[in-house]
Amino acid sequence: MENTPFEPGPDYARRLDAADELASFREAFCFPEPDLIYLDGNSLGRLPHPTVKRVHRLVEEEWGHDLIRGWNSGWYEAPARVGEKIAQLVGAGPGQLLVSDSTSVNLFKLVTAALQARPERSRIVSDTLNFPSDLYVIQGVNRLLGGKHTLHLVPSADDIQGNADGILKAIDERTALVTLSHVCFKSGYLYDAARITARAHEAGALVLWDLSHSVGAVPIDLDRWSVDLAVGCTYKYLNGGPGAPAFLYVNKEIQGQVISPIWGWFGQKEPFAFDLEYEPAGGVTPFLVGSPPILSLLAMEAALEPLLAAGMERVRHKSVQLTSYLIALFDELLAPLGFTLGSPRDAAQRGSHVSIRHPEGYRISRVLIEEMNVLPDFRTPDNIRLGLAPLYNSFGEVYEAVERIRRVVETARYLQYPEDQKPVT
Amino acid sequence: MENTPFEPGPDYARRLDAADELASFREAFCFPEPDLIYLDGNSLGRLPHPTVKRVHRLVEEEWGHDLIRGWNSGWYEAPARVGEKIAQLVGAGPGQLLVSDSTSVNLFKLVTAALQARPERSRIVSDTLNFPSDLYVIQGVNRLLGGKHTLHLVPSADDIQGNADGILKAIDERTALVTLSHVCFKSGYLYDAARITARAHEAGALVLWDLSHSVGAVPIDLDRWSVDLAVGCTYKYLNGGPGAPAFLYVNKEIQGQVISPIWGWFGQKEPFAFDLEYEPAGGVTPFLVGSPPILSLLAMEAALEPLLAAGMERVRHKSVQLTSYLIALFDELLAPLGFTLGSPRDAAQRGSHVSIRHPEGYRISRVLIEEMNVLPDFRTPDNIRLGLAPLYNSFGEVYEAVERIRRVVETARYLQYPEDQKPVT
Repeated sequence: MENTPFEPGPDYARRLDAADELASFREAFCFPEPDLIYLDGNSLGRLPHPTVKRVHRLVEEEWGHDLIRGWNSGWYEAPARVGEKIAQLVGAGPGQLLVSDSTSVNLFKLVTAALQARPERSRIVSDTLNFPSDLYVIQGVNRLLGGKHTLHLVPSADDIQGNADGILKAIDERTALVTLSHVCFKSGYLYDAARITARAHEAGALVLWDLSHSVGAVPIDLDRWSVDLAVGCTYKYLNGGPGAPAFLYVNKEIQGQVISPIWGWFGQKEPFAFDLEYEPAGGVTPFLVGSPPILSLLAMEAALEPLLAAGMERVRHKSVQLTSYLIALFDELLAPLGFTLGSPRDAAQRGSHVSIRHPEGYRISRVLIEEMNVLPDFRTPDNIRLGLAPLYNSFGEVYEAVERIRRVVETARYLQYPEDQKPVT
Repeated sequence: MENTPFEPGPDYARRLDAADELASFREAFCFPEPDLIYLDGNSLGRLPHPTVKRVHRLVEEEWGHDLIRGWNSGWYEAPARVGEKIAQLVGAGPGQLLVSDSTSVNLFKLVTAALQARPERSRIVSDTLNFPSDLYVIQGVNRLLGGKHTLHLVPSADDIQGNADGILKAIDERTALVTLSHVCFKSGYLYDAARITARAHEAGALVLWDLSHSVGAVPIDLDRWSVDLAVGCTYKYLNGGPGAPAFLYVNKEIQGQVISPIWGWFGQKEPFAFDLEYEPAGGVTPFLVGSPPILSLLAMEAALEPLLAAGMERVRHKSVQLTSYLIALFDELLAPLGFTLGSPRDAAQRGSHVSIRHPEGYRISRVLIEEMNVLPDFRTPDNIRLGLAPLYNSFGEVYEAVERIRRVVETARYLQYPEDQKPVT
């Protein structure tokens, strides 16, 4: 199919769908509104059927019937057990990845631990495409540790492409930590994590990747790339549900050298001995803190089933097909209407969402959401993000979404909306 | 009924149940095994019916149907909205209480903030009855801040009564922070929070109460007591579900003076502006960090309904009746069998669980759980905790539980179990 030349009409989409190896995975998800084209799986993944069943059983049978005994029949081990499932998606061997807290809290733990593991170094390298909450966490850690670190933010030339060369140059022998979003939230730019990690190690720095926008969408090989630390969220391409708990990864090679700043009983060697002195468990476990939110955690565990069955290779293959097809349609149908592409053209530098920018982006996205049954998301000031989730988005949906966007702009239907930019989450 | 003299037989329990104003609240909870006597609501509350309904609607309609739009129709405001509901249970006026993270993570935020707000002081006062995870958090914060603080743990004479006088004496002008469990997890000892808070303030120290074992069980009046900081968990007497997110309280008077060490986008002034510089929101909001686990959070919100309807005054009244009745039965039926009371006799110094201690406590609790359909919990080395949840535990259950415990010990049925103390969560 990749050899068939692109055509802008719906037949081409139909042919791509007919040849799609992952097409049947769409049935693993709930579609209560069949006409709705959901292009925000990069913010909140669709509800998987296995999760619906799991939550019923969890609430009514496990909590309702088993009560406290639930902790001894699968809840207590869940952070590590679910962690090992996510580990399979990011190339992490056993004993390095845990589900715990939120992405920002995990980032706090790992940034603090990393800076304390390089006490003689004062520079943190990141970039202006990083997710703002990540930068806030770093700014907070810097204040907490006495303000002696400098956060060096490498700028992007166009707010689309990551400045990999600038980052490589910024890493030096003063650098304690390099931390970046693997896939950037605005543009979907995908960093070459192996290359940047290697350069950081050459300079003696630690590396922390935020995988929130890449896990479940692009291939990740943490162990092979010798990544030190990583965090990620589970409610985007992992479909874990709103605010589902996040994960963290600490490479075996540096476990014991990096120490969590938050000591809690889930990281204690024998939590049920109730000793008054903290004694950390071995391995990555000390990065756990308190009781995990079991409903959210086990709903997310069930959501991983379709993704684990599909496998990251097929997921990435379809993701590239979807985003490439979208960009081809964009060039044909949307570029002439005043849109510019806000994502990399090179698929090797692109995650699974495509940003399209338009001066009227805010109002266009409102029409799409409120009248056209298309759900993208909007990021200020002009950025409409179209997330393509390989497990449930079809090529037909991509075609139809572009068609609806075209219609909204051609008919100038957005003009009836006020211009104020109320945040669209 | 309180005027009728105690009788050890089942008729007395029946009369107490007949006069119980809260008896009908039992119908708000699920009882899939009617014969099971559940006495562990102090660890994990029973499943409320409103939660079952809420979770179905939340998963299938809100996540499944509304998808990302759920954030704009109630999810985003949930940490503050649910916080205000809990605020009603702990005497907190608006704008001071939020649902966020786990108890230990919240404790980390507040302990760090408190110590940094008293930079010239080096002493932390707590006690040996505090929940170990709280002490681990403090030990971790101390290391993080350079190890210049001393954690002064006031010992309890008998591992039952809190040493209030010892604590009052330990508070001095070196003291930065006094932090205790309001109700102690082992013995159920209830501190006079107003008195200790007043003394701490007199000495210029800040006070942080862990309300995990008191919220929803005993009256709390944070504002009137001028408490500075508090945390608490929602899966015990609030029935929020396994690992449901915790809450934190920061008194209006000190908001702005205490600064969270963990800066995240949920604490940012305008999170959807995606500025690269952290600028904290006003009030207590900067103590939020990342996306909350919505399934666990909204399941917990629904669980609060029966408790808010019952009101803390009636809840406390019945709690005292339940624990007093249990202790009267204990004296009559269990003390002669080698049990000692592990909780205060004075109801004014007691929360809503009663600990009974026996050299064979571990094996006795195993028989209760595995053969007798009684679910207490066991805390090493000899402590059987009997939690009495006023909303759903009846006096008849208390009578029947004591009867079953008596039978287990009189028939020495526990001797068939091995002596090893596998932790019972």
